[in-house]
Amino acid sequence: MLTLYDSAISGNAYKVRLLLSQLGLPFKRIEMNVDDGSTRQPDFLKVNRNGKVPAIVLEDGTCLAESNAILYYFAEGTAFWPQDRLQRAQVLQWMFFEQYTHEPTIAVVRHWVAHLGRTETTEPLLPVKIAGGYRALDVMEDHLSSRDYFVGSTYSIADIALYAYTHVAHEGGFDLSRYPAIRAWLARVAGQAGHIRITD
Amino acid sequence: MLTLYDSAISGNAYKVRLLLSQLGLPFKRIEMNVDDGSTRQPDFLKVNRNGKVPAIVLEDGTCLAESNAILYYFAEGTAFWPQDRLQRAQVLQWMFFEQYTHEPTIAVVRHWVAHLGRTETTEPLLPVKIAGGYRALDVMEDHLSSRDYFVGSTYSIADIALYAYTHVAHEGGFDLSRYPAIRAWLARVAGQAGHIRITD
Repeated sequence: MLTLYDSAISGNAYKVRLLLSQLGLPFKRIEMNVDDGSTRQPDFLKVNRNGKVPAIVLEDGTCLAESNAILYYFAEGTAFWPQDRLQRAQVLQWMFFEQYTHEPTIAVVRHWVAHLGRTETTEPLLPVKIAGGYRALDVMEDHLSSRDYFVGSTYSIADIALYAYTHVAHEGGFDLSRYPAIRAWLARVAGQAGHIRITD
Repeated sequence: MLTLYDSAISGNAYKVRLLLSQLGLPFKRIEMNVDDGSTRQPDFLKVNRNGKVPAIVLEDGTCLAESNAILYYFAEGTAFWPQDRLQRAQVLQWMFFEQYTHEPTIAVVRHWVAHLGRTETTEPLLPVKIAGGYRALDVMEDHLSSRDYFVGSTYSIADIALYAYTHVAHEGGFDLSRYPAIRAWLARVAGQAGHIRITD
C-alpha cells in the first residue's frame, strides 16, 4: 500500500490526500510535525532528503516528494490530467504559479498567523507577504472571471493545487469577499465527486 | 515564429533559450527590464497576467508562462523528457524543488548582490537566504554524488532547470568549492551538444 508522510495542517499534504481519495486509491498516513524539526531528522531525510512533507512511498519502495509532482504521478492517464499537450503545459504553468507565487505568500502567512503565532522574526515580513498573497488572488480572480476551472473546461490537478491553500486563506486573515469568481470556483471544487475536506 | 519575452540576467529565461537552442527551434527575443516595473505594465500583463518573464508566445498566439512549464511544453516527445512515468514525476519533483527551494534562495541572493545592490530592505534577509541556498546545494550534492544527471542516466529538463542558477551561483557569493559532484555535473551539462551560455 502507498504510504503518505502527511501533515494535518499542510495544504501541500492535503492536495495529495484529496487526489488519492478522488482516484479511490487507498493509502496509509504517517502524521509528521512540521514545526518541531522532525522532518529534518536522519530517519526522515532518508525518505525525503529535502526534509519536507508531503512525501509518498510507492508500492516498490520508491519515494516521491514535492506535492505537485506527486499529483502529476497519480493524475497521468486519468481525467485529472488533460489529453491536450498545451493544456498539460497550462496545468503545469498554474502549478508552478502555485508553488512560486501563491504558496510562499498565502500559505506562509496562514502558517505564521494561525499555527506558529506572530514572532519578532516574522512580523516585519508579514506586510510584504500579505500584499504578495493578494496579488496572487488578483491573478486568479481575473483568470476565473471567464472560466469554471483553471485549464480547459474541466477540473484538473491545477485546481487541486490552487484549492489547497486558497480555501483556507481566511485562516491567515485574507479576505475573499472581493473575489466572487474565486469563491464560485471554490464551491465548484468542493462539489466534485469524492471531495474530502482538509480536516477529514 | 516563437516570441520569447526574455531577460539577459534571468536564469529562468536562460532555461528556455537553452532548451530551444538544443532543440534547434528558432525564436525571436524581446528583452524586458525586470527591475524597472516594465513587466507590470498593462501591455505586458496581456502577455503574462502574473507579470514575470520568461513568457513565450506560440505560433498560434497562445502565451505560456512559468519557465519550467515552458520547458515541459517543448521537451515532451523529445529525449529531454523521460519515457518512464516515474522518471517523468522525478523530473517534475526536481523542477518543483528548483522553483520552491533553489530559485528563491540562490537566484534571489544573486539578483540582490549582483544586480540590485544590497539595500536596507534586503540586507537583513540575506543570511537566511544564503543559508537556504547552501541547504539546496547540499541536497543537490548528495543526490549527484552517485549519479551523472538528476533523473535516470541522461540529461533532461530537470538538469536544465537546476543548471540555470547553479552555474551562476558564485555571482551571488556562493562558494561551490566544497561541492565536487555539483561541479562535475555543471561541466557535464555545459558539454552537452548545442549548449549555449547565459551570455550568448
